[in-house]
Amino acid sequence: MPAFLVLHGPNLNLTGEREQAVYGELSYQTLNEQMFAWAEAQGIELRVVQSNHEGELIDALHEARSWAAGAVINAGALTHYSYALRDAIAAVGIPVVEVHLSHVAAREPFRRISVIADACVGQVSGFGHYSYVLGLLALLQLTKVDH
Amino acid sequence: MPAFLVLHGPNLNLTGEREQAVYGELSYQTLNEQMFAWAEAQGIELRVVQSNHEGELIDALHEARSWAAGAVINAGALTHYSYALRDAIAAVGIPVVEVHLSHVAAREPFRRISVIADACVGQVSGFGHYSYVLGLLALLQLTKVDH
Amino acid sequence: MPAFLVLHGPNLNLTGEREQAVYGELSYQTLNEQMFAWAEAQGIELRVVQSNHEGELIDALHEARSWAAGAVINAGALTHYSYALRDAIAAVGIPVVEVHLSHVAAREPFRRISVIADACVGQVSGFGHYSYVLGLLALLQLTKVDH
Amino acid sequence: MPAFLVLHGPNLNLTGEREQAVYGELSYQTLNEQMFAWAEAQGIELRVVQSNHEGELIDALHEARSWAAGAVINAGALTHYSYALRDAIAAVGIPVVEVHLSHVAAREPFRRISVIADACVGQVSGFGHYSYVLGLLALLQLTKVDH
Amino acid sequence: MPAFLVLHGPNLNLTGEREQAVYGELSYQTLNEQMFAWAEAQGIELRVVQSNHEGELIDALHEARSWAAGAVINAGALTHYSYALRDAIAAVGIPVVEVHLSHVAAREPFRRISVIADACVGQVSGFGHYSYVLGLLALLQLTKVDH
Amino acid sequence: MPAFLVLHGPNLNLTGEREQAVYGELSYQTLNEQMFAWAEAQGIELRVVQSNHEGELIDALHEARSWAAGAVINAGALTHYSYALRDAIAAVGIPVVEVHLSHVAAREPFRRISVIADACVGQVSGFGHYSYVLGLLALLQLTKVDH
Amino acid sequence: MPAFLVLHGPNLNLTGEREQAVYGELSYQTLNEQMFAWAEAQGIELRVVQSNHEGELIDALHEARSWAAGAVINAGALTHYSYALRDAIAAVGIPVVEVHLSHVAAREPFRRISVIADACVGQVSGFGHYSYVLGLLALLQLTKVDH
Amino acid sequence: MPAFLVLHGPNLNLTGEREQAVYGELSYQTLNEQMFAWAEAQGIELRVVQSNHEGELIDALHEARSWAAGAVINAGALTHYSYALRDAIAAVGIPVVEVHLSHVAAREPFRRISVIADACVGQVSGFGHYSYVLGLLALLQLTKVDH
Amino acid sequence: MPAFLVLHGPNLNLTGEREQAVYGELSYQTLNEQMFAWAEAQGIELRVVQSNHEGELIDALHEARSWAAGAVINAGALTHYSYALRDAIAAVGIPVVEVHLSHVAAREPFRRISVIADACVGQVSGFGHYSYVLGLLALLQLTKVDH
Amino acid sequence: MPAFLVLHGPNLNLTGEREQAVYGELSYQTLNEQMFAWAEAQGIELRVVQSNHEGELIDALHEARSWAAGAVINAGALTHYSYALRDAIAAVGIPVVEVHLSHVAAREPFRRISVIADACVGQVSGFGHYSYVLGLLALLQLTKVDH
Amino acid sequence: MPAFLVLHGPNLNLTGEREQAVYGELSYQTLNEQMFAWAEAQGIELRVVQSNHEGELIDALHEARSWAAGAVINAGALTHYSYALRDAIAAVGIPVVEVHLSHVAAREPFRRISVIADACVGQVSGFGHYSYVLGLLALLQLTKVDH
Amino acid sequence: MPAFLVLHGPNLNLTGEREQAVYGELSYQTLNEQMFAWAEAQGIELRVVQSNHEGELIDALHEARSWAAGAVINAGALTHYSYALRDAIAAVGIPVVEVHLSHVAAREPFRRISVIADACVGQVSGFGHYSYVLGLLALLQLTKVDH
Repeated sequence: MPAFLVLHGPNLNLTGEREQAVYGELSYQTLNEQMFAWAEAQGIELRVVQSNHEGELIDALHEARSWAAGAVINAGALTHYSYALRDAIAAVGIPVVEVHLSHVAAREPFRRISVIADACVGQVSGFGHYSYVLGLLALLQLTKVDH
Repeated sequence: MPAFLVLHGPNLNLTGEREQAVYGELSYQTLNEQMFAWAEAQGIELRVVQSNHEGELIDALHEARSWAAGAVINAGALTHYSYALRDAIAAVGIPVVEVHLSHVAAREPFRRISVIADACVGQVSGFGHYSYVLGLLALLQLTKVDH
Repeated sequence: MPAFLVLHGPNLNLTGEREQAVYGELSYQTLNEQMFAWAEAQGIELRVVQSNHEGELIDALHEARSWAAGAVINAGALTHYSYALRDAIAAVGIPVVEVHLSHVAAREPFRRISVIADACVGQVSGFGHYSYVLGLLALLQLTKVDH
Repeated sequence: MPAFLVLHGPNLNLTGEREQAVYGELSYQTLNEQMFAWAEAQGIELRVVQSNHEGELIDALHEARSWAAGAVINAGALTHYSYALRDAIAAVGIPVVEVHLSHVAAREPFRRISVIADACVGQVSGFGHYSYVLGLLALLQLTKVDH
Repeated sequence: MPAFLVLHGPNLNLTGEREQAVYGELSYQTLNEQMFAWAEAQGIELRVVQSNHEGELIDALHEARSWAAGAVINAGALTHYSYALRDAIAAVGIPVVEVHLSHVAAREPFRRISVIADACVGQVSGFGHYSYVLGLLALLQLTKVDH
Repeated sequence: MPAFLVLHGPNLNLTGEREQAVYGELSYQTLNEQMFAWAEAQGIELRVVQSNHEGELIDALHEARSWAAGAVINAGALTHYSYALRDAIAAVGIPVVEVHLSHVAAREPFRRISVIADACVGQVSGFGHYSYVLGLLALLQLTKVDH
Repeated sequence: MPAFLVLHGPNLNLTGEREQAVYGELSYQTLNEQMFAWAEAQGIELRVVQSNHEGELIDALHEARSWAAGAVINAGALTHYSYALRDAIAAVGIPVVEVHLSHVAAREPFRRISVIADACVGQVSGFGHYSYVLGLLALLQLTKVDH
Repeated sequence: MPAFLVLHGPNLNLTGEREQAVYGELSYQTLNEQMFAWAEAQGIELRVVQSNHEGELIDALHEARSWAAGAVINAGALTHYSYALRDAIAAVGIPVVEVHLSHVAAREPFRRISVIADACVGQVSGFGHYSYVLGLLALLQLTKVDH
Repeated sequence: MPAFLVLHGPNLNLTGEREQAVYGELSYQTLNEQMFAWAEAQGIELRVVQSNHEGELIDALHEARSWAAGAVINAGALTHYSYALRDAIAAVGIPVVEVHLSHVAAREPFRRISVIADACVGQVSGFGHYSYVLGLLALLQLTKVDH
Repeated sequence: MPAFLVLHGPNLNLTGEREQAVYGELSYQTLNEQMFAWAEAQGIELRVVQSNHEGELIDALHEARSWAAGAVINAGALTHYSYALRDAIAAVGIPVVEVHLSHVAAREPFRRISVIADACVGQVSGFGHYSYVLGLLALLQLTKVDH
Repeated sequence: MPAFLVLHGPNLNLTGEREQAVYGELSYQTLNEQMFAWAEAQGIELRVVQSNHEGELIDALHEARSWAAGAVINAGALTHYSYALRDAIAAVGIPVVEVHLSHVAAREPFRRISVIADACVGQVSGFGHYSYVLGLLALLQLTKVDH
Repeated sequence: MPAFLVLHGPNLNLTGEREQAVYGELSYQTLNEQMFAWAEAQGIELRVVQSNHEGELIDALHEARSWAAGAVINAGALTHYSYALRDAIAAVGIPVVEVHLSHVAAREPFRRISVIADACVGQVSGFGHYSYVLGLLALLQLTKVDH
C-alpha cells in the first residue's frame, strides 16, 4: 500500500474562508476529507501537513524520504520565491507534483513564475480542490510506471 | 452524452518517433486510442484533430462552438507565441484545458511562457500521455459542476 | 475606379459573437455590408478576404499587387507577432493602413506592440467598425495625393 | 450644434516649417483653416488651442468640461511622458481622440509609446493633416452613437 | 545519389521583385535554376518547396524524413518567431542548414534572433543567392563526413 | 509660529469631481479648509499652492526657502517623471513630505515609481485627504525634533 | 474600545542597537512603550508581536481575524519578497497599514519594492518611530470612517 | 557680430546656493557675468534666458530662430525626460550645444541618459561654469567652420 | 580563545545524501567533525547551528552578538532571496564570511546572485567542505588583523 | 591573383587540443594547411595571422588595407565584446566574412551576440574547419561580383 | 610648465582615412600637429600616445603618474567596454578628460555608454578635432584651479 | 614538487599605491614576497606573471599547460568582460581558482558579474592579499584530492 504526502503551504488553512471568488467556497477541512475518502477508496495511505512556515514544509519533505512514495505540494505563495523549498524537493528524491487551486498562469505576473517547478515532475492548476485529486492520480500513475 | 474536442498542435503527429527522451515512446496512434477507450468507458464522445497549421486549429475551435462541451488542447510550440490561438480560445466560450506531454515549466526558457494560458481554465503538464487523461477528467468535472 | 483590399485576420469572422464588451455587437456580415455600401457610394471597388491562416493572408496580399491600389488590414492577434505578414506588407509596395476595432494601445501589454506597424503608412484604432471606414477614407486620401 | 476642442501640443506651431520630410509642408495656419472649413460644413463649433506648456494644455482640457462634447489631441512629444496630461484626459470625462501627423509607431523607439493612449478612446496616426480630419470624424461618430 | 530538400519560407517567392536593395535583383526562378544546375553537376537530387504557410513548411519537413539526407532552409521572417518550425527541424533528425539572402545579423533587432538556430547544424547569411550554394556545399560536406 | 507650504500638483484642483472611486468624494475646497482648520488649531501658518504647471510648482518651492519650515507635496502625476521637481526639492533644503490621496503602490505600474521620493524625508499614501493631515503631523514632528 | 495589532518583522527587535544612522537610536522597548502610552490615551487596545519568523507573522495575522479591527505592520526585509505575508494580509480582511522606520523609497533598489503594498490600505515611511504613530492614527481614522 | 542664446533650465537660478558639493560655489549671477565678459571680449552678442518652465524654454528656442546663430543649453533635469525640448532643438535648425555643470555621466543612473543629446551637435560636461565657456567656444568654432 | 559561529542553512543537513554530483559525498556529520578537529587544533571555540527555518538562522545570528568573534555562513538557497538574513548579518556587527560547497557562480542563474553578499566581508565557494575551512581561516586572519 | 587575409583570434592556436567535443579534432596546423592547399588550387594568395592580442588583430587588419582584397575572420571570444575590432573592420573598407568553427547561435547566450557582425558582409558558422573554406568561397564570389 | 598626456585609442591612427562622414577629413597627423601648435602657444608640454592595444594604453597611463599633470583620452571603441582602462584612470590619480571626435550620444546604442566616464572629471564630444582642444583647455583650467 | 601559476591582471602592479581604501596598503612586491615565502614553506614552486595586456595573460595560461598543476588568477577588471580569458581558462585544462583583493560582490554592479567564473573551479574574494593565500591553499587541496 503506497503512501503519499500532501503538503499545504502558507494561508491554505484559510481555504474556503479567504477570497472565495479566487479560491472557491470549499473549506480546508472538506478538501482534506475528500482526499482521505479518495485515498481510502484507492487503498492509499495519505498524510497531510499544513504550515505557514517554510522551514516546517522543508522538514516535512525531509522526513517523507523515509515513508512516502511521492508527494503533492501546493506551496501557496512560497511557490514564487522559495528556492529553499525547491532545493528540498530536489534533495528528497521522490516524485513531487505541484498543484494549485487557482489557475496561477492567468493571475498576477508574480504568480506566473514557479521557482519550484523545475524540481517537480509535473503541474496541475486551476481546478480548485480537484487539482489535488488530479495530482494524486498523476502520482499514482507515476509510481505504477516505475514498478 | 457530452462531447469533447482534443486538439493536437504542430509536430504532435510525430509523438513516439521524435525526441523520445523528452516526449516518451508512446506513439501518436496509441495516445489517441487510449483516449477513445477512456471516452467510451466514460460515455463521452471524443473528436480528435491534429494539424501543423495554426489556422486549421483555430478553424477547429470555431467549429467546436456548435457541438463540444469543452476542449483539451496541446498547442505544441504554438503555445509560446500564437496569440491568434489564444484569442480563438477566448472567443469560443467553452472551457478549454491546456495540456503538455513534457513538463514545460522545467525546460528551455521559451517553453516556460504560455500565451494561451490566460484564456484557458487550467493546465496539466509533465505526465506524458496521462496529461491528456487528466485534462479530460478535469473537463468532465468542470462540466459536471456547471450542471 | 480604384480598387482596395480589406483583409481580416484570425477570429474576425466571429465579430459580433465573441467578447461583445470588447469588440462590439455589430456582426461580421454587417461590418462588411457597411463597407460595401460605403464603397459603392464612393465609386470604389472593394474585395474582402478573411482567414484564420497567416499564409492565406500573405497570399492575398501578394495577389493584390496586380489589382489593388491599397489595402486596409486588421491582422487580429497576428498584429503582435507575425513578422512574415509584416514582410509581405513591405514587399507588395501598395499603401496599407492598419486598423483595429478595439483601442489596442489601452489593452493588455502584448496588444500594445504592432510588429506590422513600421511597414504600414498609418494606423486607426478604437472606433469599432468605424475604424475600417476611417481607414478606407485615409486610403482614398492617400491615393488621391499620389495622383 | 456640438462643439469640439482641438489641442495642439509643443512645437506643433512650427508645422510646415520644421522637418518637412517628417511632418509635411502644410503650414500650421493652413492645417487649422482646413479644420475650421470642415467644421463649418459639418455644423460643428471648433476651438483650437496650441501651447508649448504642458500646464496650459491641462488647463484647456479642464475648461473644456464646461463646453466641449469631445476633443482631438496631438500632444506632440508630451505624448511619450506626460502622465499629468494623461490624468487630465482621464479626469475630464469627455471622449478624447489621439492624433499624430506622422506614423509614430514606425519612428524612433521613444515615439512608439503613448502614455496618454489608455485615457483616450482611440488613435489615428500617419496621415498628415488628414489625421486630424479623421479624428474629428471619429469624434462625430462617437458623439452620435452616444445619443 | 543523395537527395536534399530546399525550403523557402514566406515572401521568398517574391525574391527579385521586392526590396531589391536588401534582397538583390536575382529572381526566385533564377535562384532555383542555379541550384538545380549546381545539383545536377554534383550528382545530387534536389527538391524545392516554397510556402507562405508555416504549416506547409512543417509538413514538408516531416515528409523529408523519408527521402532526404539533409535540408537547406531559409525560413524568411518565420526565422524570428516560429518555435513550431524549430521543433519540426529538431524532430526530423536530418541535418538542416539555415541560410539567409541578406546579412540578418546586421539588420533590424528582430532579425538578429533566430529561434530555429539551435535546432540547425549551422548558418550561412549575407551572400544573396550564393548563401544557398554555400549551404548546400556545407550539407554535402556534412553528409560525407557522416559516411 | 512655524509656517508650512502645501503644494498640489496637476489635476488635484479637480479632486472630488474626477474618478471618485479612486480619489474620494471630498472636494478640493473642503480638503483645503480641513487643513486650514487643523493648522489653526495647531498654531501653524499654512500656505496652499495648486498648479497644473511644473514650472510654477518649482517656483513655489524656490520661494518657500524664505518663509517655510517645511512642505507637504502631492505632485500628482508629476511624481512619476518630473526630475526637475525632484531637483527643486533637493535644492530648497527644507524637509518635504510626499503625500498621495490614493495608495499609489497598489495601482498601475507607472504610479509605483516616485522620482521625487529620494529627495523627500518620508512618504504617506492611501488615506485620502487624511494623508495630508498625517503629512503635516510628520512635518510638525520633524521640525520639533530639529529644535 | 477598538483593538489593533502591531506587527514587527525580522530584526526589528534590534531597533536602537543596529545601524543607528539608518534606524535611529530609539530602542525597541521605548518604541513599544510609546505606542502603548498613545493607545491608552486614545482608549485603544494594542497587542504587539515581533518575530524573525515569516510563519509566526502569518500566524499572528490569522489570529487577528478574531479580535483586531486593524493592523500596523513593519515587515522589515520580508516587505521585499514575502508573497506569503502579502497573501496573509489579503486573506484576513481587516485593514492593514504598512509602516517603515526609514524612508525605504530612498534607499537600496531592493528596498524600493514592497510586495505587500497592494494588499495594504496605505503606507507611511521615513519618520522613525513616528511612522508607527501615524500608521495607528490612519487606522483609527479608517475604522471611524467605516462606522 | 554673431549672436548666441544661452538657455538655463530648471533650478539653475539657484546655482551657487544649492548642493554646492555637486554644483560648485559660483553664483548664478557670476556665472552669467563671466559669460557676458567673455562674449564682449570675443565680439559676440549673448542673450541669457532662465526658466523653470519647459514651455518657456521651448518658446525661447522658437524665437531664437530669428536672431541667433547658435545656442548653448543646460536643460537641468529636463535633460533626462523632456522630449518636447528635444523636438524644439531639432525644429529650430541652429546648432545647439548641450552643457552641464556637473559630470552627469558619473552621477545617478537617471542623469546618464540625455534625451536631447541626439538633437544637439555636441556635449560638454563636468567643468562647472567653465563647461559653458567651452560650449560657447565650440559654437564659435562651429559657426566659423560653416562660413 | 576566540569563538566562531558556523551557520548552515536549509537542506545542508542532507549534505552527503542529496545530489552527490553537486555537493560531494562527504556527510554533514563528517563536515562538522572536520571543522571541530580543525578548531581544536587552532585553539578556537566553534558552535554549529543548522536550520531549515530562516527565522532560526536570524535568531542564532542575534545571539552570536554576545559570544562570537565572527561567523561562517552557508545560507543554502536562502542566499538568493533572504533579505531578512542579509539585514541580520548587517545588524549583528561581527565579521561574517559567506561560504558555499559548490561553485555557485557557475550554476543556474538564480544561484549567481547572493543578496547577503554585501553584508558579508568576503566569500569562498566551490571547494566542497574545504570552503568552510578556508572561510574559518579567513575569519581567523580577519580577527588577528583587527587586534 | 587576389590575396586574402585569414585572421584567427584568441585561443584558436589551440584548435584540435582544446574542448574537442565543441571545436573538433582537426589541429590548428592542419586547418591552415587545408586552406593553403585550397588557395593554391584556386590561384589565390593567402596570409594567415593568429594572435591572442586584440591589438595585434587590429594592426593586422590595418595593414591588410594595402595588400588584401578581403578577409576571413574568426575573432574567437572577441566576437562578443570587441567593439574596437568591429571599428577596425568598418575602417579598413575591404569585405570581411565572419566565420566560426562551432554553431555559436546554438551555444551559451553570450556567444549568440556578435558585435562585429554589422561591420562584416556575411557570416558562416557551425561547420568546423569547413566554415573557413565556405567563408573563402564567399569572399571569392564577392570579389568576382565586384569586378 | 605643465605637461599633459594625449592618449588615442584603437583605430584613431586612421582618422581622416576611415568613415569620413562620421570622423571628418582631418588626418591623424594634422590633428596632432594642431595640438602641438596649441600647446606650444600655451607653454604646455604635450606627449601623444596612440595604440590599438588596451594594455599599452594602460601602461602609458601608469607611466604618466611620474610626469603628467593631466590627460586627455579618446579611448575609441574601448570607451564602451574596457573596465581595465577605467580602473587605470581611477588608479593614476591625475585628472583625465574624456573626448570624442563624433557625438557619441547621438550614434548607435552601444556608443552611448561610456564605462570610463565615472573615472574621468568631464567629457567633451561631437566637435571633431576641436573636441581635443576643448579637452586640453578644460585640463588647463582644472590644473589652474587646483593651484 | 607541484608548480602553480599566479596570474595578476591589469592595474594589479599598482596594488598598495592605488585606492588604498579599497585595495589595502600592502604593496604589490610584498604581496608576491608573501606568496613566495608561503610557497617555499609548502614545498611548492610558484611563478608569478603580471600584465596589463589581455593577450599576455592568455599566452601565459597557454604556456602553463606544460608546467603548472594549477593557477590562481586575479584578472582585475578583465574579470567582467574578457570572454577570451574565460575561453583560455577553459582551454588549458588545469584547475584555476579566481581570487579578488576586494569583495567584488559588494561593490559596483559591473563588478558583481564574473565572466570567467564558470571556467574556474572556485572563487575567493574580499580578504586582501590573504585571498591569494586561501586560493593557493584551495589549489593545494584540489591537486591532493586528485591524487
